[in-house]
Amino acid sequence: MPIRNHHHPVQESHGNPMSRQTPESRERYRHFLALQTRWIDNDAYRHVNNVVYYSYFDTVVNGYLLGRGVLDIEKSPVIGLVVETQCRYFSPIAFPDAVHAGLRVARIGTSSVVYEIGIFRNEEPLAAAQGRFVHVYVDRASGRPAPLAPELRAALEPLLVSPSP
Amino acid sequence: MPIRNHHHPVQESHGNPMSRQTPESRERYRHFLALQTRWIDNDAYRHVNNVVYYSYFDTVVNGYLLGRGVLDIEKSPVIGLVVETQCRYFSPIAFPDAVHAGLRVARIGTSSVVYEIGIFRNEEPLAAAQGRFVHVYVDRASGRPAPLAPELRAALEPLLVSPSP
Amino acid sequence: MPIRNHHHPVQESHGNPMSRQTPESRERYRHFLALQTRWIDNDAYRHVNNVVYYSYFDTVVNGYLLGRGVLDIEKSPVIGLVVETQCRYFSPIAFPDAVHAGLRVARIGTSSVVYEIGIFRNEEPLAAAQGRFVHVYVDRASGRPAPLAPELRAALEPLLVSPSP
Amino acid sequence: MPIRNHHHPVQESHGNPMSRQTPESRERYRHFLALQTRWIDNDAYRHVNNVVYYSYFDTVVNGYLLGRGVLDIEKSPVIGLVVETQCRYFSPIAFPDAVHAGLRVARIGTSSVVYEIGIFRNEEPLAAAQGRFVHVYVDRASGRPAPLAPELRAALEPLLVSPSP
Repeated sequence: MPIRNHHHPVQESHGNPMSRQTPESRERYRHFLALQTRWIDNDAYRHVNNVVYYSYFDTVVNGYLLGRGVLDIEKSPVIGLVVETQCRYFSPIAFPDAVHAGLRVARIGTSSVVYEIGIFRNEEPLAAAQGRFVHVYVDRASGRPAPLAPELRAALEPLLVSPSP
Repeated sequence: MPIRNHHHPVQESHGNPMSRQTPESRERYRHFLALQTRWIDNDAYRHVNNVVYYSYFDTVVNGYLLGRGVLDIEKSPVIGLVVETQCRYFSPIAFPDAVHAGLRVARIGTSSVVYEIGIFRNEEPLAAAQGRFVHVYVDRASGRPAPLAPELRAALEPLLVSPSP
Repeated sequence: MPIRNHHHPVQESHGNPMSRQTPESRERYRHFLALQTRWIDNDAYRHVNNVVYYSYFDTVVNGYLLGRGVLDIEKSPVIGLVVETQCRYFSPIAFPDAVHAGLRVARIGTSSVVYEIGIFRNEEPLAAAQGRFVHVYVDRASGRPAPLAPELRAALEPLLVSPSP
Repeated sequence: MPIRNHHHPVQESHGNPMSRQTPESRERYRHFLALQTRWIDNDAYRHVNNVVYYSYFDTVVNGYLLGRGVLDIEKSPVIGLVVETQCRYFSPIAFPDAVHAGLRVARIGTSSVVYEIGIFRNEEPLAAAQGRFVHVYVDRASGRPAPLAPELRAALEPLLVSPSP
């Protein structure tokens, strides 16, 4: 489902003000992870399947948190639940392309974080896809929303980007 | 990322009017596919990973289209590109749960279709997750938007549901 | 990787006496799980990718053990590690095919179990693929091999099949 | 399924002479691909699931062939079918580990190729897992075994390794 291209403007709006309708450039992101495509990422249309982009999102977010020492899967009393994800696809990627996943934080709430991710193909300057990934932190035992830990907040602040005008 | 539950209201809004903030019931969907979870669907938190829900979306949409004879992967001159997907997660699912994927169509445009999917766990009446999946149809050769084929439009109409009040 | 067919005999032997060179029938298996293919299971050759068969193996084995109450992911002091898997592919499967996974046990050792799995497409009588899946049970804390629990052994015995002549 | 370790010798043999029972070192492989783990690769045991190793095999083999210009998914008259895969698992890998996949060729037949793959975790000298991946080349139209193309044979010869004594 992937033979998309930057040149066919999709003029019909689907009504979602939060998703940016046009591909952004790399400068809009604060942290990058180089990712590889895998043979199995390609689907019957011979491009990376729409589902797989979310595994890139998951990897860049959790990789960032693990790298900063603010994610402890086994023991932390407070855990991040994914409550919403979204992706807009602008142009195709296919194995064996390289991918750079750009990460930024759009909002740090009391108990939630809104991440935004840009997926860049090889050395292309504009995103092939853009998405969001929303964590709500809850107490592991009670399941109730819990405030973000100060260390987590400190790790996220360098990624915070104000909305583009 | 999965120990979600229906009982913790997430009061912070993330600004997206299109995604329904509360779980809907099965009556709001027009077509159902019984799906199985797989062992590998569970992630390190021991629930179905957020990425995997999109493979359920993909399967119910393409399965419906194949079943109606309106998807020809190899030869059709016009193909559907996935231009946007989204999911909100309300409560966890885990292997070996059964899943019912409900499908409806929220909008049929000139060259695009907006599908909405509800993921129901076992016999639960309310959705564990809800999402959307947007196809834009393009000419396979030129990549330019192309009008929906009449047979496709006819296959989609029974799934059309007007927005809930 | 998938346009295989029962009619092209692969006469070159690859030297592995344990893998059965020819497709078996359903009667050779003791437990069945109906499985669905997913859109994403198909790869660029438009058939189920070779990797995905192992997710069917994993699911039928763990599903059987969970169903018999002899698998406790979180707490059991002894856990099964996968030490070897193998698959021979005879003929292709593709979404939206249905799959029946047949399961049997070829050997119950002191601390290990050798499972064999047959993957049957739709109503076909002969396996599309056949594989094995070997668990070694170890003490969760020390990592040393541990004897199979009596309940596990009891759950496995009905699946035990002597080698075909 | 994954808390394996190099130090617990599994003394029960499972009867397969082709799979090497002990981890080999990197020198036994001829081509390497650096691979990343993904968050979703980890399963409920918090290590890379046994299925996922095969996506690494697939990627290193097809990546090598694409890089040498001897794989044309869309048009080549002769295609490689995967007829057998196998993996032995020695010790666990977990996201965010890096992986190096070593590749060699154990046998070049008239119409088949036996690849062997070693999966190395981070900078470890011994393989965490070892596997094989067998391609049979067939005529795309007839499905009958076809001789390996001379260019393919030339691309494979540098990877050929004689069995260790």
